[in-house]
Amino acid sequence: MPAKNPLLDAWRSGRSTLNGWLVIPHHVATEAMAHQGWDSLTIDMQHGMSDYSSALGMLTAISTTKTVAMARVPWLDEGIIMRMLDAGCYGIICPMINTADEARRFARACLYVPEGNRSFGPIRVGHYAGSDYYQNANEEVLSIAMIESREALDNLDAILDVEELKAIYIGPADLSLALGCVPKFDQEDPVVVAAIERIVTSAKAKGKWVGIHNATVAYARRMTDLGADFVSVGSDFSLMTRGAAAIVSEFRGHESDRSVPY
Amino acid sequence: MPAKNPLLDAWRSGRSTLNGWLVIPHHVATEAMAHQGWDSLTIDMQHGMSDYSSALGMLTAISTTKTVAMARVPWLDEGIIMRMLDAGCYGIICPMINTADEARRFARACLYVPEGNRSFGPIRVGHYAGSDYYQNANEEVLSIAMIESREALDNLDAILDVEELKAIYIGPADLSLALGCVPKFDQEDPVVVAAIERIVTSAKAKGKWVGIHNATVAYARRMTDLGADFVSVGSDFSLMTRGAAAIVSEFRGHESDRSVPY
Amino acid sequence: MPAKNPLLDAWRSGRSTLNGWLVIPHHVATEAMAHQGWDSLTIDMQHGMSDYSSALGMLTAISTTKTVAMARVPWLDEGIIMRMLDAGCYGIICPMINTADEARRFARACLYVPEGNRSFGPIRVGHYAGSDYYQNANEEVLSIAMIESREALDNLDAILDVEELKAIYIGPADLSLALGCVPKFDQEDPVVVAAIERIVTSAKAKGKWVGIHNATVAYARRMTDLGADFVSVGSDFSLMTRGAAAIVSEFRGHESDRSVPY
Amino acid sequence: MPAKNPLLDAWRSGRSTLNGWLVIPHHVATEAMAHQGWDSLTIDMQHGMSDYSSALGMLTAISTTKTVAMARVPWLDEGIIMRMLDAGCYGIICPMINTADEARRFARACLYVPEGNRSFGPIRVGHYAGSDYYQNANEEVLSIAMIESREALDNLDAILDVEELKAIYIGPADLSLALGCVPKFDQEDPVVVAAIERIVTSAKAKGKWVGIHNATVAYARRMTDLGADFVSVGSDFSLMTRGAAAIVSEFRGHESDRSVPY
Amino acid sequence: MPAKNPLLDAWRSGRSTLNGWLVIPHHVATEAMAHQGWDSLTIDMQHGMSDYSSALGMLTAISTTKTVAMARVPWLDEGIIMRMLDAGCYGIICPMINTADEARRFARACLYVPEGNRSFGPIRVGHYAGSDYYQNANEEVLSIAMIESREALDNLDAILDVEELKAIYIGPADLSLALGCVPKFDQEDPVVVAAIERIVTSAKAKGKWVGIHNATVAYARRMTDLGADFVSVGSDFSLMTRGAAAIVSEFRGHESDRSVPY
Amino acid sequence: MPAKNPLLDAWRSGRSTLNGWLVIPHHVATEAMAHQGWDSLTIDMQHGMSDYSSALGMLTAISTTKTVAMARVPWLDEGIIMRMLDAGCYGIICPMINTADEARRFARACLYVPEGNRSFGPIRVGHYAGSDYYQNANEEVLSIAMIESREALDNLDAILDVEELKAIYIGPADLSLALGCVPKFDQEDPVVVAAIERIVTSAKAKGKWVGIHNATVAYARRMTDLGADFVSVGSDFSLMTRGAAAIVSEFRGHESDRSVPY
Repeated sequence: MPAKNPLLDAWRSGRSTLNGWLVIPHHVATEAMAHQGWDSLTIDMQHGMSDYSSALGMLTAISTTKTVAMARVPWLDEGIIMRMLDAGCYGIICPMINTADEARRFARACLYVPEGNRSFGPIRVGHYAGSDYYQNANEEVLSIAMIESREALDNLDAILDVEELKAIYIGPADLSLALGCVPKFDQEDPVVVAAIERIVTSAKAKGKWVGIHNATVAYARRMTDLGADFVSVGSDFSLMTRGAAAIVSEFRGHESDRSVPY
Repeated sequence: MPAKNPLLDAWRSGRSTLNGWLVIPHHVATEAMAHQGWDSLTIDMQHGMSDYSSALGMLTAISTTKTVAMARVPWLDEGIIMRMLDAGCYGIICPMINTADEARRFARACLYVPEGNRSFGPIRVGHYAGSDYYQNANEEVLSIAMIESREALDNLDAILDVEELKAIYIGPADLSLALGCVPKFDQEDPVVVAAIERIVTSAKAKGKWVGIHNATVAYARRMTDLGADFVSVGSDFSLMTRGAAAIVSEFRGHESDRSVPY
Repeated sequence: MPAKNPLLDAWRSGRSTLNGWLVIPHHVATEAMAHQGWDSLTIDMQHGMSDYSSALGMLTAISTTKTVAMARVPWLDEGIIMRMLDAGCYGIICPMINTADEARRFARACLYVPEGNRSFGPIRVGHYAGSDYYQNANEEVLSIAMIESREALDNLDAILDVEELKAIYIGPADLSLALGCVPKFDQEDPVVVAAIERIVTSAKAKGKWVGIHNATVAYARRMTDLGADFVSVGSDFSLMTRGAAAIVSEFRGHESDRSVPY
Repeated sequence: MPAKNPLLDAWRSGRSTLNGWLVIPHHVATEAMAHQGWDSLTIDMQHGMSDYSSALGMLTAISTTKTVAMARVPWLDEGIIMRMLDAGCYGIICPMINTADEARRFARACLYVPEGNRSFGPIRVGHYAGSDYYQNANEEVLSIAMIESREALDNLDAILDVEELKAIYIGPADLSLALGCVPKFDQEDPVVVAAIERIVTSAKAKGKWVGIHNATVAYARRMTDLGADFVSVGSDFSLMTRGAAAIVSEFRGHESDRSVPY
Repeated sequence: MPAKNPLLDAWRSGRSTLNGWLVIPHHVATEAMAHQGWDSLTIDMQHGMSDYSSALGMLTAISTTKTVAMARVPWLDEGIIMRMLDAGCYGIICPMINTADEARRFARACLYVPEGNRSFGPIRVGHYAGSDYYQNANEEVLSIAMIESREALDNLDAILDVEELKAIYIGPADLSLALGCVPKFDQEDPVVVAAIERIVTSAKAKGKWVGIHNATVAYARRMTDLGADFVSVGSDFSLMTRGAAAIVSEFRGHESDRSVPY
Repeated sequence: MPAKNPLLDAWRSGRSTLNGWLVIPHHVATEAMAHQGWDSLTIDMQHGMSDYSSALGMLTAISTTKTVAMARVPWLDEGIIMRMLDAGCYGIICPMINTADEARRFARACLYVPEGNRSFGPIRVGHYAGSDYYQNANEEVLSIAMIESREALDNLDAILDVEELKAIYIGPADLSLALGCVPKFDQEDPVVVAAIERIVTSAKAKGKWVGIHNATVAYARRMTDLGADFVSVGSDFSLMTRGAAAIVSEFRGHESDRSVPY
């Protein structure tokens, strides 16, 4: 891992990046995922099943490759945000950012003084980011606020105006629920689609990087065409589960009646 | 596990339920506990020794039976509350709820929009609660606020008036301390007994379910006679420890002088 | 889990069963696999990454469903064979059984006296198999010897004549190597295909149940048509990894050049 | 922990010692057990659920008290025997010792050269046993062979004549099965009782220390009266499980119909 | 561990104590550290890599000796503060305390009613601190606020005036950053040195105990000469890493060009 | 990691390599060690504290660098030897090889057919060693037999004549004990020194690579001068422990009286 964040290089050159999603809290699964060629992998500590300890091993597993490591934290909490940065994440996705104040508080937790209030102690990231890490980190580390509630939509411009914030991430399932629709990815409901388009367009207009969660590459491609800088597709967990369901269905000679978990 | 919460069925039919308490953070102990016939088991993440990762295995262990899974979270923290719900809990006990605002914030973290602000991603609960889980969850999932401080007693009516809150839970040890008494279960001190009676009676009058922690079945029975809908008795840890102390005492031929931990 | 082994019921009624393969040593992945409808799941402790401790949680995860639990042990070792049976496996696959003596030693480790020398202490299996487990276990528990070396082929009839042995399992990769071919599943090399056919036919003739590992349902179907009683297809690990490789390839617009691990 | 084994001191002075049994593979349960006043605690790695890693934490937990640590290994295997000694055990119980050769091989694995072939590297035991540990270990460390099969009964005198062996342990459940009786502790079947009496008497006559597993203090007392030097009663797991079953029964007002696992 | 905190005894008698720092989240490393004669050991849950679960085993490891156990929590969060106290810590270091309100909120989380709002349930500390623990805890348990930001310097007197607070701890790396200097221990920059001197002097004047983190014994001695009551030197992690770097350099015959992580 | 073993490249070019030793069973410690520039790191599963599961994470940690991963297994056991190879080790050290038969059995477990009987399933090593791993492995993977008993000395020539064996490793502590001397590294006792010289000289004469364990770089240099191809110095555990003892001594102003564990 160089001191520079390869995602920023890609985005600045106009290349959208592909992000993988990690739900299974074990480095064995992560290491195999990391070898498949994703630009970045995000450890999901909110709806995924990793905690700090399992994430630590997963970050090491990602570091066996050139894939960029990120994490989604459970909630706006300085403790876990700063720990995940020390542990080697080059991006933090924070759920349910609803106001400019929350966005600022989140972004500042990802920044050393004077821009923010991140505490110094780059214990694991120090292995690979060099002794000048603290001088580069404020530039290279991504704070990524999730926009997924009605309140966030109402405050969208104010949130995007927070100077310390680097990027936003669209959570289509919660956004759908917030807008009275069925919670799902790859939404076709016009209400949700319109909201997504508004968020992406506004973010680009305000100079923020923007990403979104998807179920399929096809939908992800629509999103990069719309302007998304990074797109997530599937997860280790859903790939495994859907693959298993497909084998069982094929063997039984009929469609599975199992519901595939999120 | 059906989509419907069996505890609610029992309580609505007037049957008080028996809750077991899980302090040992290992699924092996939990699975054995789950096979003993408790109506519900609560993973204690406050004074017990489980964290999210160990709780995850314990929830799987409980799911080998029909026992309902609940958790006591360490503190009012949306991150862990929502994670435990995604992981399969049908009830969350939150300690030290002292005001109506805290009660509402807690209860809303257990509810999807529009009633609350729970984020969508039922990763493990999706295994057994069906694809319509999100439609039933607001009805079936129990938010249970602990009443255990002087401030909470002062605000009791306001807390009980919080519409989103489903239930309360009495912590006799902290309540005793708060009232200047020795912290213990199965209190006979009239000051504490009066407080317990007031809480139970007020809860029933306000239409909230109510539970309490006990050391013995005898005291638990007094509490169900008083109106408690669910009662906890002992814990995996205290059962093991007291059982061991009894064997050592019997073998040595005299009472143990060991103090049995909480 | 009933005291009776559902696999035996299926096989006796002429139905071939579908076995899933568990490489990822974490109960979270296992529980999702267990909900997909496999007849059985096998924890691979040889080339997979589980040890006794992780297997323990995986067995609990399987027990949340009606899927039958089995394990492949690392080597012919009474210690781990008996522990996995106590932990709840209804079948043990043992690699590299090359002689009748090894087959007998293995099979006897799966049987209580007087048929074998399994030690008594059904610590976890006791949760669900009933107090008469020890009376049924010799009948219901499957000892499954892998035939995968030239020496085993040479001794095939003698191995199949071992009365205590219940079943055999074909390891196509090692068998291929042993016969001078490329190690892989779903072999089309006539030398290996002939060996597989000989093993299946001999096993059926000698009254032993027989299974085989496969990469695809199509090949597995050829094997059940040939007489295989149970067939494994893929693994949690390969499903996840191949699924990820497919997404990356689709997004990049060209085939992945990553090698997908075993 | 002194360099001297307190169990030997007790036995030499004619005091029988009380041994606790550890099935739950977690240091939290172990530490609580260790504070209850047992003379020794044995980590069961055969029918209990500990492996080397969990045992390591359990040994540390025992070392917070003066209780002597022992382990029952899964099978006669030099690897795990020597590791458990390095980790701090002052006694190893080995199951299913059936011949003098097996007894000698086991005992020698517990002894440094020239008496045995234990490899040198007292990594954890070095914390408390002093730099002269290797000079005392052959004297202080207990090798304890289980006598629990018909073959072992046939070879009893030869086994007891193995000079390197320090002690034997009676496994009543397997011994019962071996003699055609129901596998259980606290046997009253005259066939098993006679065998137990013969083993204890022979051991004492041959100068070997002897212990036995029991379900109750009453039976254990019968065994010490018979000459047993150490007796095990119950386990962390059975204490917890039976305690839970008792609470549920009392609350329900009728006997539990649950089978309590081993 | 006695009910009395040995650190307080030392400080009251004018003896400065030596604190070790635990970054490696494994009880094996901790137990070896605990046997080296430190007065106290602090589990670092902020920039170190322990979470609650690993800390639990580390606390048990410390309890095999007379060393006093403390923890630095990730952030001002009642949940983890109270859990670490229940688990057996006799001191809690809380990072980034910037105002008197934060100091009071932190200190009160370490105190039972009526002085604070710590919840009762001394689950592990009950093993060794006696049944009267809750009566002594408010006196013996140390709340230690870190002073390491410009805001904290501005509010220093107000923070030191918080009656419930027991002690402060200087984080030289963050303090350096806050003052525009290179983040490091053993600072010689006059701006930082002046700040450290002001903090120590003010703390002593206000009757608070004071400690500081150091890289070398030499600097630590300067700090105790200045009035520091306790000093930390190095960490398990840096000792291991620097030791390894020294061996590699010596073997290679030239200085290592590796950067040694924090 | 390339398909070629860098250690062999070094040795063939006449460069002796430096091996680090891993006792602490946690990937956090391992990753820091791996960044210090060792040619290889050996996970000690005999006298160190790693088992398969912890070793798996440690191997991933080593794979974040170019350091070569090896393991010392607990005993001559095909199960664990083959698992560690699948997990990514490029060398296996096996303790207590005393005869040519044992040496051959060990070496063959490290070789695919036809040279050996290693089972095929390169689950983790497949991440980095390429799809042709199985074609290179017999050439690149090191089987390293420990010579450390009197019997091994007696059989030295026969052991060195085993064609399948690649290398030997000298265990000075056990060798010292076997020869009636104090067990330690960096021996100066002429009896042990003579034995070491004989082993090194014989190994070189028979065309086997040879390594030895040392406490200091000075002694390791003597060994490479003698002809050793690889030398181990210290361990993560001893570096940490000795470093801590040095700090405590310096602070206290007198030598520590603590014994530093092995």
